[in-house]
Amino acid sequence: MINLTSNYKIIPEFVLKDEEGIDFSSKNLLGKYSVVYFYPKANTPGCTIEGIDFTHLIDEFNGNVVGISPDSCNAIAGFKSKKGLKVKLLSDPEKRVAEMFGAVKDGKLIRSTYIVDPWGRIRREWTKVNVNGHAKEVLEEYKKIIAEDSAISDNIQIRRAFRGIRQDPISDEDLRTLIQAAHLAPSCMNKQPWRFTVVRSKEKLEKLYEALSGGNYWMKYAPALIVVHTKEEYGCQLSDKRNYALFDTGTAVGLLLTQATQMGIVAHPVAGYEPEKVKEVLGIDGIVITIIAVGYWGNFGILNERHLASEESPRQRLPLEEIVKFQ
Amino acid sequence: MINLTSNYKIIPEFVLKDEEGIDFSSKNLLGKYSVVYFYPKANTPGCTIEGIDFTHLIDEFNGNVVGISPDSCNAIAGFKSKKGLKVKLLSDPEKRVAEMFGAVKDGKLIRSTYIVDPWGRIRREWTKVNVNGHAKEVLEEYKKIIAEDSAISDNIQIRRAFRGIRQDPISDEDLRTLIQAAHLAPSCMNKQPWRFTVVRSKEKLEKLYEALSGGNYWMKYAPALIVVHTKEEYGCQLSDKRNYALFDTGTAVGLLLTQATQMGIVAHPVAGYEPEKVKEVLGIDGIVITIIAVGYWGNFGILNERHLASEESPRQRLPLEEIVKFQ
Repeated sequence: MINLTSNYKIIPEFVLKDEEGIDFSSKNLLGKYSVVYFYPKANTPGCTIEGIDFTHLIDEFNGNVVGISPDSCNAIAGFKSKKGLKVKLLSDPEKRVAEMFGAVKDGKLIRSTYIVDPWGRIRREWTKVNVNGHAKEVLEEYKKIIAEDSAISDNIQIRRAFRGIRQDPISDEDLRTLIQAAHLAPSCMNKQPWRFTVVRSKEKLEKLYEALSGGNYWMKYAPALIVVHTKEEYGCQLSDKRNYALFDTGTAVGLLLTQATQMGIVAHPVAGYEPEKVKEVLGIDGIVITIIAVGYWGNFGILNERHLASEESPRQRLPLEEIVKFQ
Repeated sequence: MINLTSNYKIIPEFVLKDEEGIDFSSKNLLGKYSVVYFYPKANTPGCTIEGIDFTHLIDEFNGNVVGISPDSCNAIAGFKSKKGLKVKLLSDPEKRVAEMFGAVKDGKLIRSTYIVDPWGRIRREWTKVNVNGHAKEVLEEYKKIIAEDSAISDNIQIRRAFRGIRQDPISDEDLRTLIQAAHLAPSCMNKQPWRFTVVRSKEKLEKLYEALSGGNYWMKYAPALIVVHTKEEYGCQLSDKRNYALFDTGTAVGLLLTQATQMGIVAHPVAGYEPEKVKEVLGIDGIVITIIAVGYWGNFGILNERHLASEESPRQRLPLEEIVKFQ
């Protein structure tokens, strides 16, 4: 069920019995921020402190703390009621799940804790845990991760239509990554109507410059220009003017812009060019909806006064109330 | 010049003289990954080790290491040539820049190091540095940050058209963040043609369900549906079929999807609905280009067999070569 491509480790799939002998699946961990901790033995002093400390903070963890040990269901049921624990306890008698998490060494369970996010990604882990102050430390990290995830992504808020682009090249590998990111966009009926022509040869760039409007003089410093095109018939064409070729291509460009920002690359889409000329130069047809100048930031000497000021001017946006209604 | 909204600290603006008495501006740090380190005094043993260690690794840092101290230009010029240093040295006689970075305490310079990324964000800092093994540690972190930034963002690659959505509510604050992220998209002539109607009242949702196609039964479990609409005249309408209302709205949706993924929220845009009915229910007009179901993942019991299989099936995409050409 959890088949994600991620830069993080994903939790293994498992089903274990809880204190009441009921199945608890790893799927229960999806869609929420959880703590999964492995402890060696119910009712021993360290494990008792750990269970009680997590119990004291259970509301701040939104109830999502799961403790796993090799004890039997009976043993964890007794441990839970005797100590008044409010964490979910699971029985992993053969340490099979502990092993999958990496919490076993030489057959021995290593006290370990994992913060798991809504996609089942392991965001933080502790091994060879010392229980003193541990639950509190985990809570701090748990809150920090949620706060980071809840804030507007830097890849969105840092992005601006910057023009001060350095001539330093961008590797083909990095350009390819930008296109791969765009290509992961969703589209109506998965038609993937977007097409990209990445121009970085000097010869083709020189010809492309002739198609740019005068105000886009700064694009001549960009090491690559990404020409984005499509055709109406590449996308779904549904009732009530719902033509998806341009919309889906826009979504793909949205992903490309955030990926570029993450990579420290300015990606500035423009509309100021002669489309017929662009198509002629590149040998393409259809709708050329945008050209994206890409490059590294910091070359302010090339800019005219107005553009220089715009590099640091505040963003202009309609008040949020004008573009959204809640019902 | 560096006026970015970021979740990180941004480097302060400064101009200092280098070893040759030439101005070095903080703008030089933009568009590349750099190391900026503060050291107390040229030619003393610790500072010599630090300078030599960074010099040995200078190529791996792409030449971008800057050492700053309160020494005069003459003193750093002598230090650099005598020890054969290949780092850029700057003179900060009044410790003014050191102070702005936070590398001064009680008037004393504290040996500190900062990794600065292409946006001028301080991505990692060390204070009270012990020079032994320090340059190597900084290099490891420097490479790690570049590798992370160069990989396809999890917010792009984890996103899928998931349907197993839990009924748990999403706070209005989080829904608002999604719209704010979308609203930061670029648009032709900054026309911001996107409009969103966020539906989460039970009464309106019930009515909206009647407009959904049968295959979208799973959307009834979503705590909110975001209806995305626009009008052709809200966007630029340029020559050669370049109508930007749908394209720009698609870009905004691209940003919304990546932001939702970061927040651990499934955001699944669909086209299967009766647009006329949706407009009637919500009292809106124009083109309803998509409805995005949002909610937390993990509710697989609601899905039919085909949709259950699709939650973990591999992604289907055209080969990259079919959608991109390099020229």
